[in-house]
Amino acid sequence: MPATPSHPGTSRTRSWWGWGYADAHPDNAECAAMGALLPGTLARPLPIPRVADLAIARPGATPPPALAHLITADPATRAAHAMGKAYRDVIRALRGRPGRIPDLVAHPTTHQEVADLLDWAGGHGVAVIPFGGGSSVVGGVEYRGDAHRAVLSLDLTSMNRVLEIDATSRSARIQAGALGPVLEEQLRPHGLTLRHFPQSFEFSTLGGWLATRAGGHYATVHTHIDDFVQSLHVVTPAGASTSWRLPASGAGPSPDRLFLGSEGALGIITEAWMRLQERPRYKASTSVTFADFHQALDAVRAIAQSDLAPANCRLLDPGEALLSGASHDGSAVLVLGFESATAPVDDRLTSALDLARAHGGRSGAPTADRDTPADTAVRAWRSAFLRMPYLRDGLARMGAVVETFETAATWDTLTALIDAVRTQVGAAALKATGHPATINCRLTHVYPDGAAPYFTVAVAGRPGDEVEIWDDIKAAAGDVLHRHRATITHHHAVGRDHRPGYDLQRPEPFALALRAAKDALDPHRILNPGVLVD
Amino acid sequence: MPATPSHPGTSRTRSWWGWGYADAHPDNAECAAMGALLPGTLARPLPIPRVADLAIARPGATPPPALAHLITADPATRAAHAMGKAYRDVIRALRGRPGRIPDLVAHPTTHQEVADLLDWAGGHGVAVIPFGGGSSVVGGVEYRGDAHRAVLSLDLTSMNRVLEIDATSRSARIQAGALGPVLEEQLRPHGLTLRHFPQSFEFSTLGGWLATRAGGHYATVHTHIDDFVQSLHVVTPAGASTSWRLPASGAGPSPDRLFLGSEGALGIITEAWMRLQERPRYKASTSVTFADFHQALDAVRAIAQSDLAPANCRLLDPGEALLSGASHDGSAVLVLGFESATAPVDDRLTSALDLARAHGGRSGAPTADRDTPADTAVRAWRSAFLRMPYLRDGLARMGAVVETFETAATWDTLTALIDAVRTQVGAAALKATGHPATINCRLTHVYPDGAAPYFTVAVAGRPGDEVEIWDDIKAAAGDVLHRHRATITHHHAVGRDHRPGYDLQRPEPFALALRAAKDALDPHRILNPGVLVD
Repeated sequence: MPATPSHPGTSRTRSWWGWGYADAHPDNAECAAMGALLPGTLARPLPIPRVADLAIARPGATPPPALAHLITADPATRAAHAMGKAYRDVIRALRGRPGRIPDLVAHPTTHQEVADLLDWAGGHGVAVIPFGGGSSVVGGVEYRGDAHRAVLSLDLTSMNRVLEIDATSRSARIQAGALGPVLEEQLRPHGLTLRHFPQSFEFSTLGGWLATRAGGHYATVHTHIDDFVQSLHVVTPAGASTSWRLPASGAGPSPDRLFLGSEGALGIITEAWMRLQERPRYKASTSVTFADFHQALDAVRAIAQSDLAPANCRLLDPGEALLSGASHDGSAVLVLGFESATAPVDDRLTSALDLARAHGGRSGAPTADRDTPADTAVRAWRSAFLRMPYLRDGLARMGAVVETFETAATWDTLTALIDAVRTQVGAAALKATGHPATINCRLTHVYPDGAAPYFTVAVAGRPGDEVEIWDDIKAAAGDVLHRHRATITHHHAVGRDHRPGYDLQRPEPFALALRAAKDALDPHRILNPGVLVD
Repeated sequence: MPATPSHPGTSRTRSWWGWGYADAHPDNAECAAMGALLPGTLARPLPIPRVADLAIARPGATPPPALAHLITADPATRAAHAMGKAYRDVIRALRGRPGRIPDLVAHPTTHQEVADLLDWAGGHGVAVIPFGGGSSVVGGVEYRGDAHRAVLSLDLTSMNRVLEIDATSRSARIQAGALGPVLEEQLRPHGLTLRHFPQSFEFSTLGGWLATRAGGHYATVHTHIDDFVQSLHVVTPAGASTSWRLPASGAGPSPDRLFLGSEGALGIITEAWMRLQERPRYKASTSVTFADFHQALDAVRAIAQSDLAPANCRLLDPGEALLSGASHDGSAVLVLGFESATAPVDDRLTSALDLARAHGGRSGAPTADRDTPADTAVRAWRSAFLRMPYLRDGLARMGAVVETFETAATWDTLTALIDAVRTQVGAAALKATGHPATINCRLTHVYPDGAAPYFTVAVAGRPGDEVEIWDDIKAAAGDVLHRHRATITHHHAVGRDHRPGYDLQRPEPFALALRAAKDALDPHRILNPGVLVD
């Protein structure tokens, strides 16, 4: 196994310490230019960390001969599996304080190999951390603590094939380790798509989406991957679980819904039958500007409570709109898009624009197109969206504290929630750093009864204390969310970073049930220890 | 408490032994006329059974003084809580062989009273069977076995209020014991509706819908009550579980989804925040006839795989269409309806009709209206739909074996499944009775990846053996469903009647998890014993 393997489906190399491709990172000059925009950051970027500088211990366990061909102890591979890609992870790597590096990394290719690995791990006190694209931003793929003899990172990306397509039922059986582009490439010849495009699309897998209840393409109706699941194959230490392929069922609590969001704590999702869609033939999109963000919220609520079902309904506050180039005059911007494989969508766009205008929106020209929106604000937003995590890492190299967090809440509390985040997270950031923080907000997904706000925080750190500063800021954010009964995560998952908020949020009887389920399925307590339940 | 209380929200009396209102049952002459259509049935209807003729034992437990005011041992009330309203229940009542009659019936009015009743029951070996409208057709509200000292039927219908409305988030906090009309009446002044209209609407409660994952109004997208749940309040023996009001969340496996479909085995759902909708302002509906049922299935699939999202998309096979008066010439009939509170729906209806015609459908005139569809077939179907359970009971009085069962399967297997049901259930009915059975089919809900067929079986029984005959027929049906990997229930729930099929269907690791969850939440094993898990 090469020390720096190319990313599956590409000839490019993943960064072991930062987001995405190593060759896409901003260079030193770009980092410095960004840092200059944030008062108090470093004069020069922190150097890019090297695996060779890490103190990587000898593995604490030896794989059995029968499984040895699936397992590597290569230092670069182990380092690349040590953490996810949160700011917290990036800055720890930059500061030479990475999380615990797994002892071994396995690349199984079959259900049976996964089961064999779990058997071995269960018998030897080895923790097993499932790993897909490694893009967790919540500490979901990192071992913390010392209760296990060794840590095995279970990398599923060798199981990346679309195994079967049922065109009649418009569904496909897909291995869990397929990265977004890898699975879409296999579906394309059939004229079908899973149509799940999270920001991490290139760097996350089907199994990761399922295990974390990822948020995808659609702003409305089917916002999470959950709705596209027809059946799951999950390998647990207590045996394999295969649910039937069903379009719907009322037979008891949904078995799939117990494993969706289980974050590797109950079993390893190795395969799923997924519902597919035809590629859209009709698209129309536009942007609407609002002088007042709160009025824009009312417009979005009106659209969300209609049955117009926009595919995109993303509201950017003035700061977010400025950052992405969608507006330059202090306006909030609503990016609206409709898509269909069946019928033209122009009428729906027109109806949505009417609702937006009735709440003070000023609209650009609607754009009907097949591939790319012509509207400048829409295009600016989309391009910035995919670039943002790279810029975050560039700012991290300048000693900045830059990260996002997201939530969802009902409309009755949403305005107060957003205002409280600005005030209280801003105060916490100022207290922790001495600098005023930039706090931007956008809505990523909207519902008839509420919406999902997504916040970006940026502030200069104190050299060497960035992790602690971020933890303080995040604790303030968690506190605001808790007091407003807003979920600790809408689509980033719980992982380890969100455990305090999650423990407050989930009803205690459900925690009892979940612990009991974990005891039954994972009796040796080896599966992703620390996420969801202890 | 009166012996024959009027049905909540009405001045009418429920039948203790049969469907719905006592005064809506077909009279003897109607029964005889129906029986004449089914060769081999009785010459005269069985008499309507009387509570006075039942051998009702003295209660096996005495309620504590503090709870005595909530509990009755009145024989008529106990008899009315002994069983659900399946054919199996009705014929047992007609034949003087009802299920075990509960010792006591409680009518709590608060969460705390529910908790107190569970405490008392847990300490005294008393089984607790939650009871809403009592319309279960799967043995969901009936005690079987003798492992408990006594049986308490926990009737929630005194908790029937809409407690709070959040118009901004378009949602309401509703007590679980509210029957369909009772809750809709409280929502109407606010211009809102839950828009969940199962066939049992008048005789079933919100709590029952939630506990059984009921199927409702919509033929597409939001077909089950599950999607309208914002949060649940569940009283378990291990404490009360209150989930946060959230439009969506990615924080671990959904707590609500564990209780949805738990059928009273994990806790008593006492209250829920539900997502509401505006009343539709635009409606359009029509019917399409097809000479060939299989071609009609293709048409429905095309519509289900479009994004037109009909509110009604009900395909009746020729027998079902004849029975309901929707067609008289051997055609299959597709009843199509669109509704919106936002925008006219005529274009969507036209697009759906285009798809139907492309698959050989001949359409009636589309009808745009506000309240009632003008199209004859649509009207005939709707009226027959609500009358059907009464007719079933009339036929039962003629010694017929008449019942429905339903399922869901992916499109690739659907045609073979429907054909196999006709052949093999028909053969089982013939073998069991010596008479050829009528087997009709309709699709009630449709999905991009499959559909939910609903079957009606009617055949003359052998006097006194009707239960055993139905059990033989149902076993054959369960076998066909299992071999086609079609769910044992799409929206009728598991109860006790579907346990064999459910045990084959659910993945074993999920069963382990569910048993563990039940042990944690119901340590004394008092909650609805026999449903879902043992």
